[in-house]
Amino acid sequence: MLNFDLVKESKHISTAAAEKIIARRRLSVDSSELIRQILDGNTTALSRGITLIESRAANHNAIAQELIEGCLPHANTSLRIGITGVPGVGKSTFIETFGNLLIQKGKKVAVLAVDPSSGLSNGSILGDKTRMQTLSVHPKAFIRPSASGDSLGGVARKTREAIILCEAAGFDIIIVETVGVGQSEVAVHSMTDFFLLLKLAGAGDELQGIKRGIIEMADAILINKADGEMEKAAAMAKNAFAKALHLYPLKASEWQPKVSTCSALHSKGVEDAWKIIENYLKTTQNNGFFEKNRRNQNSYWLRQSIENALKDDFYGKKEVKNSFSDYLKAINSGKMTPFQAAAELLKLR
Amino acid sequence: MLNFDLVKESKHISTAAAEKIIARRRLSVDSSELIRQILDGNTTALSRGITLIESRAANHNAIAQELIEGCLPHANTSLRIGITGVPGVGKSTFIETFGNLLIQKGKKVAVLAVDPSSGLSNGSILGDKTRMQTLSVHPKAFIRPSASGDSLGGVARKTREAIILCEAAGFDIIIVETVGVGQSEVAVHSMTDFFLLLKLAGAGDELQGIKRGIIEMADAILINKADGEMEKAAAMAKNAFAKALHLYPLKASEWQPKVSTCSALHSKGVEDAWKIIENYLKTTQNNGFFEKNRRNQNSYWLRQSIENALKDDFYGKKEVKNSFSDYLKAINSGKMTPFQAAAELLKLR
Repeated sequence: MLNFDLVKESKHISTAAAEKIIARRRLSVDSSELIRQILDGNTTALSRGITLIESRAANHNAIAQELIEGCLPHANTSLRIGITGVPGVGKSTFIETFGNLLIQKGKKVAVLAVDPSSGLSNGSILGDKTRMQTLSVHPKAFIRPSASGDSLGGVARKTREAIILCEAAGFDIIIVETVGVGQSEVAVHSMTDFFLLLKLAGAGDELQGIKRGIIEMADAILINKADGEMEKAAAMAKNAFAKALHLYPLKASEWQPKVSTCSALHSKGVEDAWKIIENYLKTTQNNGFFEKNRRNQNSYWLRQSIENALKDDFYGKKEVKNSFSDYLKAINSGKMTPFQAAAELLKLR
Repeated sequence: MLNFDLVKESKHISTAAAEKIIARRRLSVDSSELIRQILDGNTTALSRGITLIESRAANHNAIAQELIEGCLPHANTSLRIGITGVPGVGKSTFIETFGNLLIQKGKKVAVLAVDPSSGLSNGSILGDKTRMQTLSVHPKAFIRPSASGDSLGGVARKTREAIILCEAAGFDIIIVETVGVGQSEVAVHSMTDFFLLLKLAGAGDELQGIKRGIIEMADAILINKADGEMEKAAAMAKNAFAKALHLYPLKASEWQPKVSTCSALHSKGVEDAWKIIENYLKTTQNNGFFEKNRRNQNSYWLRQSIENALKDDFYGKKEVKNSFSDYLKAINSGKMTPFQAAAELLKLR
């Protein structure tokens, strides 16, 4: 039996290196046995399954597809929560406290991450499990660092497939963490039911590089580190955000986003965050948005996958690559319109 | 000489019907003569040129391309202002007052519209020139109703090409109007230098169906109808929006969006709006964003045109059309993932 994680952990090596060792050993994987173990809630098997999904080795691809097919009928069962916030906002501490609270409530909690900017090797978010000391060792929790990958599309796909395996393994709550930079929020927002934005009061947090548009995606904004000297500032920030959110048009979910404060470090306000999520769930299950949103997300990923492939094929063509920048120069110097250039480039197909 | 607009105006018929009459008459168009007239600032020629661009008749396409090529070296010279706001916010009245102000300042003002929801026949925005009584007859103004078209992409392309012709005809300020519904704001935002959002105080304007994300695109929010009983409410709305905008991250333009009030009907506050735009222009020309943004817009339209064509080709394929909804059903019933379905569908190419 192949024990991929053991290979990795015992040698402290990268996924790619571990893959090579595994390949050399020519160990075979029994996918039906692995599926059985995952459905049984075995987290070692779950971990191995996700590693196979993440693997770029050609001989792993077929097994990964078998795994997904075997798990899919048992998936779609959890509440998926997306969490974002700039580095330093206290995401890990929040997830540690929040995750333990959910476990106390009888839930099984899986934590995944989407962070295309950093591979496993160069310090991804969640890579340091020590930041979630109690959660990382809890038998009812499963924490998995961000998959490495060249493109956001690739990482997002792997994370979305990992969600399927986690759900099949009986996890009720899937937390998908990302950082408040880059395009990854859109991906996480498109694979979760509830989107939580962590913020800090004052300290110019609004200028800390969080991407535009994220506030509009948030179902709740949680002002973290609302303790000690910052408690008053956090309350003020809460009011400011609450007023600001009321200026927005109503969401398709008919849910009015909530603002709350918390101190994840001192376990204050985290229960309130869960109550907000429970209310959201009630609202959107009653008005049908919850199911509709999941169907929309399916359609979104189907179209995204197709359109990414179409674009990759086109822009990857040697002829297109060779002349693209020349056309752009011609447009910028007023020699042709973008539409004329597009027509020319499309002829190279 | 073909006089397309005269044919249309004298018979009160649609563009398509006018095209047929023209085609029957088999009149030929001398594109170099038309270019000369447009460069001379002849608005009748400009109007004819835009009609040729908008025409779907095959024999007009080549002439339209010649026109664009002839005008392009003289384009890129104006300030392009996008204006949006829900119906009833007073866009036409604002543009009438604002346009006249700009003419007083020695500018030549062209007004175009992007409104894919309504063709010329069924009451497009700007279709009723009586709403801009003085501007519509002013020799230094040019008002053109929204082009009809099946897709936003098509309408947007025609409007972007019309901008080129207007600039070649010597118009300094191009106003592109759109309505606060649908996807058209993104298109207008992507073809203008400054994006102005008109709002009303109170009256649940925030729930009037303005699209999410538009506030984040705005370079200025103008609370219109700030007169009489509404003056106080408008001042309050101004403060609320100003505070809310400060919660946003800084834009790539490094421009902090401004909020102001106005009463377009009583010509109050419209001069302030122009000052805001002048300041924006100063800021973004100094920091290089103005030029950079135009280059980014060129790149955006090049890629949009290419990618729309790739998608149209793929989704338009008979085999894809026939099986797309079956794959979507299979995904929604948990039989396959969107990624597996995408791989299957891509095989139909």
